[in-house]
Amino acid sequence: MTGSSNEPGPTLEAYFLPIRVYIEDTDAGGIVFHAKYLHYMERARTEWVRHCGVGLRSGLSENISYVVQKLAIHYVAPAYLDDELEVTADLVDAGRVWMEFDQAVTRKGDGRPLARATVRVACVALDSGRPRRLPEDLGQLLLQHLASKPTSQQHQE
Amino acid sequence: MTGSSNEPGPTLEAYFLPIRVYIEDTDAGGIVFHAKYLHYMERARTEWVRHCGVGLRSGLSENISYVVQKLAIHYVAPAYLDDELEVTADLVDAGRVWMEFDQAVTRKGDGRPLARATVRVACVALDSGRPRRLPEDLGQLLLQHLASKPTSQQHQE
Amino acid sequence: MTGSSNEPGPTLEAYFLPIRVYIEDTDAGGIVFHAKYLHYMERARTEWVRHCGVGLRSGLSENISYVVQKLAIHYVAPAYLDDELEVTADLVDAGRVWMEFDQAVTRKGDGRPLARATVRVACVALDSGRPRRLPEDLGQLLLQHLASKPTSQQHQE
Amino acid sequence: MTGSSNEPGPTLEAYFLPIRVYIEDTDAGGIVFHAKYLHYMERARTEWVRHCGVGLRSGLSENISYVVQKLAIHYVAPAYLDDELEVTADLVDAGRVWMEFDQAVTRKGDGRPLARATVRVACVALDSGRPRRLPEDLGQLLLQHLASKPTSQQHQE
Repeated sequence: MTGSSNEPGPTLEAYFLPIRVYIEDTDAGGIVFHAKYLHYMERARTEWVRHCGVGLRSGLSENISYVVQKLAIHYVAPAYLDDELEVTADLVDAGRVWMEFDQAVTRKGDGRPLARATVRVACVALDSGRPRRLPEDLGQLLLQHLASKPTSQQHQE
Repeated sequence: MTGSSNEPGPTLEAYFLPIRVYIEDTDAGGIVFHAKYLHYMERARTEWVRHCGVGLRSGLSENISYVVQKLAIHYVAPAYLDDELEVTADLVDAGRVWMEFDQAVTRKGDGRPLARATVRVACVALDSGRPRRLPEDLGQLLLQHLASKPTSQQHQE
Repeated sequence: MTGSSNEPGPTLEAYFLPIRVYIEDTDAGGIVFHAKYLHYMERARTEWVRHCGVGLRSGLSENISYVVQKLAIHYVAPAYLDDELEVTADLVDAGRVWMEFDQAVTRKGDGRPLARATVRVACVALDSGRPRRLPEDLGQLLLQHLASKPTSQQHQE
Repeated sequence: MTGSSNEPGPTLEAYFLPIRVYIEDTDAGGIVFHAKYLHYMERARTEWVRHCGVGLRSGLSENISYVVQKLAIHYVAPAYLDDELEVTADLVDAGRVWMEFDQAVTRKGDGRPLARATVRVACVALDSGRPRRLPEDLGQLLLQHLASKPTSQQHQE
């Protein structure tokens, strides 16, 4: 269900999550409600992080949480009830406390791009909400991943 | 906004909350999505509890949370985009750890009843999820309220 | 994703849909928000209907929609972030214009039952909201299915 | 409830909508889920349009719908359960088929800014999804409003 056709293991290439559009996602305009794409993209990031061996719930129990700091999204074409979508999460940059993703939503049937976004997520302490370093293991994976990219970028803030 | 025309103060008579239907609440069938009525009813219960002087967030900070144990709902007629609704929360019964409400959703324009439900809410410890006594002040108010009702019922479980 | 391990084809046995809990599903009480179970159950019914060869969107284009008439749900134990759930949709009764389902939500890890519900869904004309006969093909499948059940029930209203 | 302290009538000055945070809006991180801000902002735009004398539902019956084309949002600080928020919708630009809004979410208690966004909304035909001219009356109001602004901008695309 929440799996994907990606290979298991800590390779972070082009991750995508298949998502079905249900009636709960649609609105009286007959299309998927615009805020729902943020849910879809959050699911894809969550599965990507899980794919890296990091669970959100175990994070919470260690006082680690993640919050979206900013995002920009373009809606290119509407999605409809029953559509099968593919949602990507591609890590494009990272600092000590944050990750930045390029994300896209595509309709599987006709391959049509429906939306694309850039999303920046920060790691915070669950209790205080203050920024904190990304978990050690995840931070290492991110650096390796970015280093292996043709247009590698690594920042320290 | 979330206020109501009810009198302030700890009288618990016939409480209702006005709610506007937004596009986020509707689905591709052109009506309010059925699960949204549970949101509306939860908002009305929350305002009723606030009206009694009890805040949910301060409860969380004291390890007190509330969970729905069971509910039964009848959908009588659909609500549409832009409708103004009135949602009631009427306490009809209570025990040491739970409250039971009769609730209704009515369209303001034509007075048409759209849904009615019975909802039982339990008080739990936030950390363990275990049932716990209702907060002292709230418990007292509930007893007074039920005692003042024509068809008063009080249970101990 | 929205698939299941059920065999394809128009057999309507014990249908279940795997569902992952995402952060969007949870609330500040640390558990899945109670209204979300109605979403989960609606997804399972949708997949079951699709499994029968009936798509909701093509229905809309033929002026056919489905609305929940009533439901009763018991919440037995909470679901948490990252949980893998299994949601069943079991047709237990049907009339000319309605279907009734027994549904359950179970946690996959420990097999713990989290919620169970009875949900009655009516077929309506999309434009008028008036009840209408279930589509011919679906109606036939329902009758066959109910006839094959040990405790078969069939009603005409 | 969905009213505001804004003066009635077709003046489009600094519009804001009060919004209460309910448990449905929060997530297991203890804060308002990031996608919910898009709901809040959509509600504020809806009330602003209603304030201009334009109802969304009557639009739908005339084959007129509105879709978000793009948005960029910064999350500055988290909102919590029970918070009272103020959400603004300020028209800053418009073309024949679109409107652009600056929007902000502020906590009423301490006046703290929580999020700000720029949102571009297009008018489309409900059936085809194709861009279409804004309704005559609304278009006129927008032009007047933009003309009256110190930093007036008007575009034709």
